[in-house]
Amino acid sequence: MSDLFERHQALLDDALNALRVRGFWSAFPEAPSGKIYGESAKADGLAAFEAALKSAYDLPGHPETKRVGNEESAWMSALGITYPAADADMLVKASAAAGEAWAMASIEARIGVCLEILVRVNKASFEMANAVMHTTGQAFPMAFQAGGPHAQDRGLEAVVVAYDEMTRTPASAIWEKPQGKAAPIVMEKHWSVVPRGVAVMIGCQTFPTWNGYPGLFASLATGNTVIVKPHPKAILPLALTVRIAREVLTEAGFPADVVLLGADEPGAETTKDLVRHEGVEIIDYTGSNAFGDWVRQNAGAAQVYTEEAGVNSIVIAATDDFDGMCANIAFSLSLYSGQMCTAPQDIFIPKDGIETDQGHKSFDQVAEGIAAAVDGLLSDPARAAGVCGAIANPVTLERIAKARSLGRVVRDSAGLGIEQSASPLIIAVNEADAETYGAECFGPISFVVAVEDAPAGIKRAARLAREKGAITAALYDTSEERIGQAVQAFAKAGVNLSVNLTGNIFVNQSAAFSDYHVTGANPAGNASLTDAAFVANRFRFAMWRRLKAA
Amino acid sequence: MSDLFERHQALLDDALNALRVRGFWSAFPEAPSGKIYGESAKADGLAAFEAALKSAYDLPGHPETKRVGNEESAWMSALGITYPAADADMLVKASAAAGEAWAMASIEARIGVCLEILVRVNKASFEMANAVMHTTGQAFPMAFQAGGPHAQDRGLEAVVVAYDEMTRTPASAIWEKPQGKAAPIVMEKHWSVVPRGVAVMIGCQTFPTWNGYPGLFASLATGNTVIVKPHPKAILPLALTVRIAREVLTEAGFPADVVLLGADEPGAETTKDLVRHEGVEIIDYTGSNAFGDWVRQNAGAAQVYTEEAGVNSIVIAATDDFDGMCANIAFSLSLYSGQMCTAPQDIFIPKDGIETDQGHKSFDQVAEGIAAAVDGLLSDPARAAGVCGAIANPVTLERIAKARSLGRVVRDSAGLGIEQSASPLIIAVNEADAETYGAECFGPISFVVAVEDAPAGIKRAARLAREKGAITAALYDTSEERIGQAVQAFAKAGVNLSVNLTGNIFVNQSAAFSDYHVTGANPAGNASLTDAAFVANRFRFAMWRRLKAA
Repeated sequence: MSDLFERHQALLDDALNALRVRGFWSAFPEAPSGKIYGESAKADGLAAFEAALKSAYDLPGHPETKRVGNEESAWMSALGITYPAADADMLVKASAAAGEAWAMASIEARIGVCLEILVRVNKASFEMANAVMHTTGQAFPMAFQAGGPHAQDRGLEAVVVAYDEMTRTPASAIWEKPQGKAAPIVMEKHWSVVPRGVAVMIGCQTFPTWNGYPGLFASLATGNTVIVKPHPKAILPLALTVRIAREVLTEAGFPADVVLLGADEPGAETTKDLVRHEGVEIIDYTGSNAFGDWVRQNAGAAQVYTEEAGVNSIVIAATDDFDGMCANIAFSLSLYSGQMCTAPQDIFIPKDGIETDQGHKSFDQVAEGIAAAVDGLLSDPARAAGVCGAIANPVTLERIAKARSLGRVVRDSAGLGIEQSASPLIIAVNEADAETYGAECFGPISFVVAVEDAPAGIKRAARLAREKGAITAALYDTSEERIGQAVQAFAKAGVNLSVNLTGNIFVNQSAAFSDYHVTGANPAGNASLTDAAFVANRFRFAMWRRLKAA
Repeated sequence: MSDLFERHQALLDDALNALRVRGFWSAFPEAPSGKIYGESAKADGLAAFEAALKSAYDLPGHPETKRVGNEESAWMSALGITYPAADADMLVKASAAAGEAWAMASIEARIGVCLEILVRVNKASFEMANAVMHTTGQAFPMAFQAGGPHAQDRGLEAVVVAYDEMTRTPASAIWEKPQGKAAPIVMEKHWSVVPRGVAVMIGCQTFPTWNGYPGLFASLATGNTVIVKPHPKAILPLALTVRIAREVLTEAGFPADVVLLGADEPGAETTKDLVRHEGVEIIDYTGSNAFGDWVRQNAGAAQVYTEEAGVNSIVIAATDDFDGMCANIAFSLSLYSGQMCTAPQDIFIPKDGIETDQGHKSFDQVAEGIAAAVDGLLSDPARAAGVCGAIANPVTLERIAKARSLGRVVRDSAGLGIEQSASPLIIAVNEADAETYGAECFGPISFVVAVEDAPAGIKRAARLAREKGAITAALYDTSEERIGQAVQAFAKAGVNLSVNLTGNIFVNQSAAFSDYHVTGANPAGNASLTDAAFVANRFRFAMWRRLKAA
């Protein structure tokens, strides 16, 4: 069974090294290229996706009392796929039963299985890209990258942090205590990893794999069994993951039920039953703060790891590249129509304007500069659809409609020629309108907020992060002193800060093996991807010891 | 401020190495010897203790709205010491205010302060031994070892695990992402440690320092401020610790209020106010399961680390050293009159007896062998008092009185010539009496339980650990095959197992830098001293990044 471990030893070593260096490193190529993935990979992936449509998804041996499935696509008709389903109790029992063998496996056997799953998921990246595109509304290029290789890198990161955590102390030791002139006491000690038990990973609709893999693989690698509970509108990407996981588990001699699918339908979700189930020991959750609150309060003794939401801010104090700044912000606002937990919502700009390489710019000129950059980015309809994709949830369209009356419209939102789509809406408000811009407005809605000066903007943004949560913050400034003060203010608010981004790198982006995603230090989540705390509490060491024969 | 770090660098390095090796290592000598601690140390420590009696304990600058203190000693009259006290709100505010500077300090500055505190607490070990002896009822030798050097080692372990956790990833990195034929994107990234905020450490009466230091120092080292909330009957050992901590903090230029004392009196405890206070982010608790439950349910969003209680078992399957086994168990039952969270309570013995080096021994002969060994150990009154010490809480004496009727008395409990003392009570029961032996009976009360055979005993003991919690388990056996099965069964129950202990090493003992204390994997506690999980979640990393100039 440790054949798989040996097979992937080099990958593991490289990834361990990357964890320590924290520079750029990626195991799974992000380019949807035939040269990398095989010339037929694109066509094969599409064919595999299409073969799954309008049929019963096959998960051999999976517990099943009924079939569920009601997924729709912004890009075509309903998917028409049904998945095996069972109630929470049946799933937890099956998961616990499979856990007997999984918990007894060696660290190497489990890590080998996890790595093999990820490598096979990577090979299925084109099939996955189609699955992600049609359940999330992302355009194909983003669905490939974020739903495929980037998610796989995040999963790998969790596996490797788990391996590091389980092996950084020895599995056995000799303890020799001097006794003065008498012979020393010599004991042998042995430690083993004890997993917590059954884990539930609750996925979200917008990034089912990217946000789901860290919890899934952190639990799995540390010996827990996992019930994967997809969002009812984005089941396929996780069902595909579960199918591959079960195949690898079976081939390696483990029960397939080590990984289960907890599929359900909108209006008949099983999430609450799973969260409240006393047999569940770990819960990973990505989603709204409101339901996150409910999860944390109803999880009983289970360990809960959340990524929730917040209000991300940009503060514009000054810039020596006005066009580059506007273009960079425009892309961050437009990408997947702001449906990223990392997308900026509030842009704080001094009411008297800022200094730039193009001279002084008034508040309105800065706001208009950003709006114009959005217009430019989205001027070509094909590119616009490729950047923005579709809107995953109709509620977001209603939110945009309401937001128009919240202030002065600087840039209006419009459809993009695909069903259920919307370009960025930019609304101008004043610092006093904190009830407006201080509430999370998920989707392509942003506020340019006139503040007294740059420090006031930093103070306001940091306070929002502390009180409402924030996953990202950005600053444009030319003063090293003010940058230093902002660095401290945002660190205290527990939010990661990007300074003066221009060109092809964006505040929305969080890279595995380098950027921790979410800090866990403000209300936007209680955990961080992937630090030691995210993994270390999913297992325990148990020891046995005895005197060592002389 | 990092002078202190440099001063203790060698100690830190040695301790880091010990963590990785997990053999025997100790920074603070356990022998109460004048050669080590100075010829006058014993007399000086006693004098310092006596000088504190019947007076107002001085903690310069400590928040104070009133004085409290109602400590008693089993060895002399009441202590008559009063401590400064304030309500929870005042303490939390003072702690948070002090946290501004503490959070901004470098890792090295904080670690240096923590190490200096521990080294100074070590120098005060004789004063501490008197403080521990007179508040816990421990005899002097144990009060010195467990309350002094062993507790200091546990505190050091927490500091060093925290240092390791904060520094295992770099504070900055260069991230360089290739862009095909274009110039790579190059970013600089910087991470800082963000503490959670205000921590509360809730101490217990029996081991105020040993059980308190890990949480106190883990929180402190990771940048949190700590309110030390002692048991109202054992304030002095922690007040002494707080005094030294505040002295070191002040000398190093930090606010003394980084460490505060939350003293109170029996019947007017402030613990619940502190636990429910929304300004508290971390809680460490040692005590009963009942109150532990309450803490976990009322702590809000605070991280809670508990060491609670359980039912520890010994299973006797066979032995090739009957006398050694009986003597070893006798000591474990007698030490501090069973008032250790690691003391055995249930001894499972096959109803038809066991094979030994002295031939077959019936159930009764094994039980009587243990009872006789207890008698022998305690035959000399001075030694008996030295081993057993006093009973910390009168409720324990009532429990002993009631326990006599729970089964057949194999060995009766008796006073030891010091106030409020009791030797071990041993009661024989049957496996069916699970309600009796399955409930925790804190103090010198143990049950010899007749089981069908050794595997039945292992099964029963492991199940008790899973359901009621257990911190230790012990096994006597001569069959390697059965030992292997027991190792698996107890590991699954999340309990550390000692096999065939004889001589001067006991199941009750848990050594810093080698043994993890409590696993956190059964109801006897949700945390383990001191694994990465105990420390890693007390802080977060926050990053800032920007493009690096070419």
